[in-house]
Amino acid sequence: MSATAGGRPVGPVVPTATSRVTHRGLGLDDVRIDGGPWGRWQSVNRAVSIPLGIKQLRKAGNLDNLRLAAGEATGEFRGPRFMDSDLYKQLEAVAWETGRESDKDLHEFIRESAELLSRAQREDGYLNSYYQFVKPDQQYAELEYSHEMYCAGHLIQAAVASARVGGAPKLLEVARRFADHLVKVFLHEGNSGIDGHPEIETALVELYRLTGEESYLRLAEKLINERGKGHIANSGMGAHYLQDHLPVREVDTHVGHAVRALYLEAGIVDVYLETGDESLLEWSVRRWEDMVASKTYLTGGVGSRHSHEAFGDRYELPPDRAYTETCAAIASIHWSWRLLLATGQRRYADLIERTLYNGFAASTSTDGTKFFYVNPLQRRFDHIEGDDPGRRHEWFSCACCPPNIMRLVSSLGHYVASTSDDELAVHQFAPGTIRADLPAGEVALSVETDYPWAGAINLTVDRGPGSEWTLAIRVPSWSESATVTVNGEPVAATPGERGYLSLRRAWQPGDTMTIELDMTPRLVFPHQSIDAVRGSTAVERGPLVYCFEQVDQAEGADVGDLALAPDAALRVKDTELPGVGRTVAIEASAFVVSQPSDGLPYSTKRPEELVTVTPTTATAVPYFQWDNRDGSAMRVWTPLHLENGS
Amino acid sequence: MSATAGGRPVGPVVPTATSRVTHRGLGLDDVRIDGGPWGRWQSVNRAVSIPLGIKQLRKAGNLDNLRLAAGEATGEFRGPRFMDSDLYKQLEAVAWETGRESDKDLHEFIRESAELLSRAQREDGYLNSYYQFVKPDQQYAELEYSHEMYCAGHLIQAAVASARVGGAPKLLEVARRFADHLVKVFLHEGNSGIDGHPEIETALVELYRLTGEESYLRLAEKLINERGKGHIANSGMGAHYLQDHLPVREVDTHVGHAVRALYLEAGIVDVYLETGDESLLEWSVRRWEDMVASKTYLTGGVGSRHSHEAFGDRYELPPDRAYTETCAAIASIHWSWRLLLATGQRRYADLIERTLYNGFAASTSTDGTKFFYVNPLQRRFDHIEGDDPGRRHEWFSCACCPPNIMRLVSSLGHYVASTSDDELAVHQFAPGTIRADLPAGEVALSVETDYPWAGAINLTVDRGPGSEWTLAIRVPSWSESATVTVNGEPVAATPGERGYLSLRRAWQPGDTMTIELDMTPRLVFPHQSIDAVRGSTAVERGPLVYCFEQVDQAEGADVGDLALAPDAALRVKDTELPGVGRTVAIEASAFVVSQPSDGLPYSTKRPEELVTVTPTTATAVPYFQWDNRDGSAMRVWTPLHLENGS
Repeated sequence: MSATAGGRPVGPVVPTATSRVTHRGLGLDDVRIDGGPWGRWQSVNRAVSIPLGIKQLRKAGNLDNLRLAAGEATGEFRGPRFMDSDLYKQLEAVAWETGRESDKDLHEFIRESAELLSRAQREDGYLNSYYQFVKPDQQYAELEYSHEMYCAGHLIQAAVASARVGGAPKLLEVARRFADHLVKVFLHEGNSGIDGHPEIETALVELYRLTGEESYLRLAEKLINERGKGHIANSGMGAHYLQDHLPVREVDTHVGHAVRALYLEAGIVDVYLETGDESLLEWSVRRWEDMVASKTYLTGGVGSRHSHEAFGDRYELPPDRAYTETCAAIASIHWSWRLLLATGQRRYADLIERTLYNGFAASTSTDGTKFFYVNPLQRRFDHIEGDDPGRRHEWFSCACCPPNIMRLVSSLGHYVASTSDDELAVHQFAPGTIRADLPAGEVALSVETDYPWAGAINLTVDRGPGSEWTLAIRVPSWSESATVTVNGEPVAATPGERGYLSLRRAWQPGDTMTIELDMTPRLVFPHQSIDAVRGSTAVERGPLVYCFEQVDQAEGADVGDLALAPDAALRVKDTELPGVGRTVAIEASAFVVSQPSDGLPYSTKRPEELVTVTPTTATAVPYFQWDNRDGSAMRVWTPLHLENGS
Repeated sequence: MSATAGGRPVGPVVPTATSRVTHRGLGLDDVRIDGGPWGRWQSVNRAVSIPLGIKQLRKAGNLDNLRLAAGEATGEFRGPRFMDSDLYKQLEAVAWETGRESDKDLHEFIRESAELLSRAQREDGYLNSYYQFVKPDQQYAELEYSHEMYCAGHLIQAAVASARVGGAPKLLEVARRFADHLVKVFLHEGNSGIDGHPEIETALVELYRLTGEESYLRLAEKLINERGKGHIANSGMGAHYLQDHLPVREVDTHVGHAVRALYLEAGIVDVYLETGDESLLEWSVRRWEDMVASKTYLTGGVGSRHSHEAFGDRYELPPDRAYTETCAAIASIHWSWRLLLATGQRRYADLIERTLYNGFAASTSTDGTKFFYVNPLQRRFDHIEGDDPGRRHEWFSCACCPPNIMRLVSSLGHYVASTSDDELAVHQFAPGTIRADLPAGEVALSVETDYPWAGAINLTVDRGPGSEWTLAIRVPSWSESATVTVNGEPVAATPGERGYLSLRRAWQPGDTMTIELDMTPRLVFPHQSIDAVRGSTAVERGPLVYCFEQVDQAEGADVGDLALAPDAALRVKDTELPGVGRTVAIEASAFVVSQPSDGLPYSTKRPEELVTVTPTTATAVPYFQWDNRDGSAMRVWTPLHLENGS
């Protein structure tokens, strides 16, 4: 690929040479995924979702709005004020795709958009179709809800992506001019404002990484340090909502709008990586631990409340009313990846895996045409969500999620592996190839695996320097055991302190390393403090969370009445399902437990005394594949039925 | 009381002579409550809440807005567009209070308001400060969210209340002129619009009852029959939200905005009562049964979702995120009372009692100065609700609840008893007096009771016609047993099919009837389909739901870690608490069950294997008295701890 000449890292996050990373990401072009669910997601994304996204942006007015700002059209501004950002995320996705493989239409979309943006951009570098066309006198005057810097951030990320894959310079020129305007106003002229929606912080650090212009880093640092001081107004939803309730070094648990909170975290870790300000890392890790322990769904999804799209209290994790916005899952992955680069610890890759395969992947229909904004873990029969039964949609009036999904899928390869000194660490498992430059020279691997359907991952060394280097592979925390063979011989190896199996050898071309993870299906149980799923269990296998959809159950077995024994037999069934494709279903010995409905649903008798119990076999499918057949009931958490009735 | 001369019924709901009631309510003046919690609520309401409400209305601009409409002032309209309705509800409360006992300041507030309303009212009868001052060209053009008929409804209810207690005629004149305008536009001129917020329907029926003008009834009937036909636009929250998704004879479960749904039901039953349209009653009863069985909290509260202040799915009843708006509890009481008049069945009085003592009464602080809009059944430690820890407030920018509370408390006596032929039925128990006219003549009772703290209710006949008549008393469904004595002698009596103990006698002055209800504290358990409180239990005693507040627990016993055995010993403790006053607390033998927090809160081990358990004594207080001390954690539902660990 000419766009990635010389093996230069071109992934989304490319820390500078002096940054405090323990690991460095590879380039998009260094990792090729050619099968499995990830490969499928990438080809559907490129062939279906991205063209659909471009069509929807044209239809919804995202490009027309910029034409209004450019004075090239007349009419009314359409959509929410952050419409520009949807285009920018789409451009970022398209840019990564052109890096994966050139395409005339994709290049043309970037070119056309960059030209339009350039024409719409003001002389002084400012660019925002809403504020230029609708409220020209309110520039930076409503930062609490204006999303001006938020939009700028996504423009910058799109431009950085385009530049990293060798795209034409126009988009980067536009982005830099806007960034320079922000630097002028918010760094040099002393405007102490911050944006109500963080996102600019991580983008500015990335622009610094790309260009070496330190003022971008300084502005990112300032915007983080000024948060929580009340510089901007309450948007009507409180200071928590927009992460302005406390300075970032005093916040110990996430509250308010989840996407805002987690984009900010990505920026915080980015600033730490480039400045070495340990206090930023320390507080970010503290919040990560708090979030994981008390505010994260089994699917990796975060942000439980519909109201304000917000984090709930600790352990407030209702499965039915789980908001778990798709964008919050994406932001969580961005944050964890930066912490993984900073620390090299498995727990961050574990959460990325859990989130990618479940909370994130469920957002998109198998055919790539429909998207969830909200990702609940339960849908009851006859569910009402406004006027919506809660199914995936083709697009949204607030369309933040679909292009965000596309940019992550386009850059999935970035999250597969990283290097640290003379170690190549494999974090995520997908068939394909991995290439990296170690100090001793280039290494290249082929990965063969049927993951996540099967637990064997075979790595074959294709190229290597001949001298010793370390091949490290993550042993996911869900795997009870893992066996390793090298060139077919069992090797006694246990994961090190960081959670990786590391083998240091003078690897030769043709050498193989195989790890076999434990894919026995398992029942998991919630911490006792999660009130909403007390007395329930969920099925998992490998990295996948499972769910029971009504469509798969026996006649008369209402998903709402299913129950499982804590030692229920679980049988694996490799199969194809219409609308879903390849899957591994799980059949569980279960019960239909039904209780009559008679007046108030409260009694001095325990439900165990009032129910009738019938054995059944219940069938679960991976949560990420749900809602691809009908709109019927679904549940991840299923009540326990205890044989002794207690 | 001159205002209630001749014992004429003056309560909120006064069906006509030809209506299809099986029971008729008494007048406000026929029931006097002189002690117990209800007596306390009424005196605090009169002495504290009502003066505070009037002050807040003056401060918030509700009266100033009308001055703007009257052309007597300049400035800006303040508050939401339905600001007039808060004043009307306050006027209704004040009117009932003047009926209970005359007061110069209260009369003056009605007089001043009525004069102002009269001056603000347009020549043609239309009256709405927002649409007259802010959007004069949009009259009835935005019915989906204008609240014009909603405001008219509350004006009418205030005027009807004032007229029924013999108030000056001005307020009724204003209300009739507006009602006549509505009749002209929506009945005679063929405008098929309906209001996005029901409320006008029940008000028009009441105005018909007061005046005999049949067009009011016809308009109410039409507004109900036109619902669900899409005559008004979607306000942005869907047709369900404003009860326009289906005709009322096709809706079998409540969805959308709870207050809208239940005000509409009150109107539906009112129209049935006056027209005899059985299909209206039939569908309303069907929905009542559905709501009670699957969408009602233990406290009687309804409307579980914060989003859209809406009903959730069946069995979607989270305790922590329970919205259960105070106004929805009030609307539920209004609806059930009308069904009780229609059918005479105990279940309606049972739900009224449950709602009044719990979901409704918790809305107001003991001192009458602060109010809940939202009434959750759980508040976690460190709870965040926007920028609000979720405590009671003095007033709200959307102040629908406080004056609604006041009008219900002022008219509480109306819900105590009713008559049916020669029967006097006592539905609710409060010390005081009850007077009614039966066909044979006037009867009067004194009620002595320490209810709900104690279960004995003593009725003494003060006056009677001498001939036989029936004294019926509700045996609440929560009472496992009830013993009855007449003049001190045990009587073998069991509740009849309607749920009332009925004794037909030639009652003589001085005769006594005593019923002793079972006040043994009890544990109740939820229907198995309520996922959010599975494996939990709640404490009740008499009509009261209990809760555990952190302030009452032993050191180290975190409310979040409390658990109860299903046969936990419960000890009653009659006591006084600072900030709360008289209460009966319940001490329960309990456990502190704590589980370490370590990474993701999911494990292949059941929580029972991971917890440490320590016995403790936990103290519960009535839910309606919560949040009167500090803002700490509270829970109604407590996990079960099963001794055998399963």
